[in-house]
Amino acid sequence: MKICRRETFNAAHRLFKQEWDDAKNLEVFGKCSYPNYHGHNYALEVWVEGEIDPNTGFVVDLKTLKHIILEEIVERFDHKNLNLDCPEFKDLNPTAENIAVVIWNILRKRIDDKFKIEVQLSETEKNKVSFAGL
Amino acid sequence: MKICRRETFNAAHRLFKQEWDDAKNLEVFGKCSYPNYHGHNYALEVWVEGEIDPNTGFVVDLKTLKHIILEEIVERFDHKNLNLDCPEFKDLNPTAENIAVVIWNILRKRIDDKFKIEVQLSETEKNKVSFAGL
Amino acid sequence: MKICRRETFNAAHRLFKQEWDDAKNLEVFGKCSYPNYHGHNYALEVWVEGEIDPNTGFVVDLKTLKHIILEEIVERFDHKNLNLDCPEFKDLNPTAENIAVVIWNILRKRIDDKFKIEVQLSETEKNKVSFAGL
Amino acid sequence: MKICRRETFNAAHRLFKQEWDDAKNLEVFGKCSYPNYHGHNYALEVWVEGEIDPNTGFVVDLKTLKHIILEEIVERFDHKNLNLDCPEFKDLNPTAENIAVVIWNILRKRIDDKFKIEVQLSETEKNKVSFAGL
Amino acid sequence: MKICRRETFNAAHRLFKQEWDDAKNLEVFGKCSYPNYHGHNYALEVWVEGEIDPNTGFVVDLKTLKHIILEEIVERFDHKNLNLDCPEFKDLNPTAENIAVVIWNILRKRIDDKFKIEVQLSETEKNKVSFAGL
Amino acid sequence: MKICRRETFNAAHRLFKQEWDDAKNLEVFGKCSYPNYHGHNYALEVWVEGEIDPNTGFVVDLKTLKHIILEEIVERFDHKNLNLDCPEFKDLNPTAENIAVVIWNILRKRIDDKFKIEVQLSETEKNKVSFAGL
Repeated sequence: MKICRRETFNAAHRLFKQEWDDAKNLEVFGKCSYPNYHGHNYALEVWVEGEIDPNTGFVVDLKTLKHIILEEIVERFDHKNLNLDCPEFKDLNPTAENIAVVIWNILRKRIDDKFKIEVQLSETEKNKVSFAGL
Repeated sequence: MKICRRETFNAAHRLFKQEWDDAKNLEVFGKCSYPNYHGHNYALEVWVEGEIDPNTGFVVDLKTLKHIILEEIVERFDHKNLNLDCPEFKDLNPTAENIAVVIWNILRKRIDDKFKIEVQLSETEKNKVSFAGL
Repeated sequence: MKICRRETFNAAHRLFKQEWDDAKNLEVFGKCSYPNYHGHNYALEVWVEGEIDPNTGFVVDLKTLKHIILEEIVERFDHKNLNLDCPEFKDLNPTAENIAVVIWNILRKRIDDKFKIEVQLSETEKNKVSFAGL
Repeated sequence: MKICRRETFNAAHRLFKQEWDDAKNLEVFGKCSYPNYHGHNYALEVWVEGEIDPNTGFVVDLKTLKHIILEEIVERFDHKNLNLDCPEFKDLNPTAENIAVVIWNILRKRIDDKFKIEVQLSETEKNKVSFAGL
Repeated sequence: MKICRRETFNAAHRLFKQEWDDAKNLEVFGKCSYPNYHGHNYALEVWVEGEIDPNTGFVVDLKTLKHIILEEIVERFDHKNLNLDCPEFKDLNPTAENIAVVIWNILRKRIDDKFKIEVQLSETEKNKVSFAGL
Repeated sequence: MKICRRETFNAAHRLFKQEWDDAKNLEVFGKCSYPNYHGHNYALEVWVEGEIDPNTGFVVDLKTLKHIILEEIVERFDHKNLNLDCPEFKDLNPTAENIAVVIWNILRKRIDDKFKIEVQLSETEKNKVSFAGL
């Protein structure tokens, strides 16, 4: 049984590799590397897989999952500049893939190990990534 | 190859465990346990996995799958009070997880065993569950 | 200039006219009149029309509009049974049309008269109503 | 007869009034005023109202409208920082309302005066504005 | 008070003016004029404006409106080739605009004159038209 | 890590098996076999699974994936009649299942073998298929 909670956050970012100069960044990342940042409405789906607790009929209480996501992810990234404001991306390019890994690692520490976690993150209506751990 | 048919139904329910008193139910289930029920537009996706029949180009005819879902699930639960009207939930708390298991078990009897089935059920725009059998 | 804020609430209801017996109610309202209630995820869009305040660049601060909707509408109707729990529908059939009028009247008292208000309420993916006052 | 074309663009911005200090900006605009910007997936609907050309069956060819929107709006604002990169917002707070007015004025110059124009702009799934001229 | 019912139908069409040769049609209509047709999932919203009937709490019963749309529009156009199968488009180019006018005229005969009607028709996720009569 | 790009195309088709006469085709495929074709807005999601390239933070650059889909799939099928214009379906019934297999095979030749591919194709809001190879 898998359950899913969806939340959203709005953030600015640019794709940028520090070891490369601006021309190389522009060549690889295109307009995603523009120096003054752009932004997205990120939509996050967190899937948790486990057995139903016969007492509650829940895998995990979706209210609890919601509060974990709001505290750990939305509070941290909403209305932020991922490159400038978030130490997680100080040395890590904030691609959708890397953001999903960062979110997965944060949530992994807050959700009991008996549950599997999958993080789906959509950056636009057309671009989406999914990470379920290594 | 997997195929999917989506249908919807509208129902009332409350989350409620008979062995617990009202205070305990409210503590665990919050406003989902309010005594006079609330309701949802449930959106159901039924995924069927199998091989393509070379005669038709179908795994299962989606018209057939549609009629099974309408007869077995929509007819049964649409515009009903899950707690009061549906014997399936007489002794089972109608959480999204438990509703998905009930639906999976009903459909399992109507769909040939050579096909795997997965049931996805969304309760709101933010809450969703998925069950693929044990 | 018009601005819009969208919020949702989940409620149970039945369509039912007290002056009519059950057979007449069933004839007119069909399965919407089933005695044990059903429910919906209501999606509410509140549109406010007026001029842009040159100080803020807002017609009305959407955060303020959000809080008015949460306090006055979501708090009042979410996870409720409209027929049993809400005095607004004690003598008023809770059709989408009547719910929209009730919401419009509540909001009209909280939003400055210099602004026009329109309330859009969707009951399902296929049914929607809109009310902009008389 | 009205026709509509929808396009999207992704941009960074902050709400900020130059005459106010940071504390005042934070008080009025909340987290929307954070200094390092955040961002959105803006969804733009451009409605054009007029009569059907009996030769083509079109009010305006939607391909033409699409190209005007891409050239004038998406090219200008996509993957930009509205505050830093766009002279339109050098002295204008980039609220959704003000962005809609700017877009309306740009399109007004490119679309024949015999047609009325309305611009709808959504900033998030919950916030939307509409401007149809003065 | 306005109410809305949404239904969908799937049809093939091509944009094509009989008085023009193929080269001229291709120049004006582009790939929409390809000779072997293409197709769309049309989504139709029918808005009906009038007063609430105090007996029912309805402007028009949405079940009734649904049946009129299914009988008159979906039955007529669903899984059809608009150019070849539908006499309405024998001498009329099946642009979204013209389809909306045809639908509006059909529905106008079935819905009481005391109600205003507006037809919204989307052809793709990006193209939409609206017609409310002359 | 999986990434996904979504694109759309509009095409006409009919379901039809050449070895069967019209009556048999109608019996099996219903209105999907009508002789003059109907059509759909197909929505395609292409999922690519692999490891994140530490240089870019990408599994595969979504811009690259977009261009492969546009060149290989949208260019090939958009505004076409699948039965008449597309040699892929000369002897293959263009069901959603078969279209997904054809797309998967085309993309498999363009995307490095170290990546797994899954193709999801929706034909309507209610019908969807998924193919991940044999």
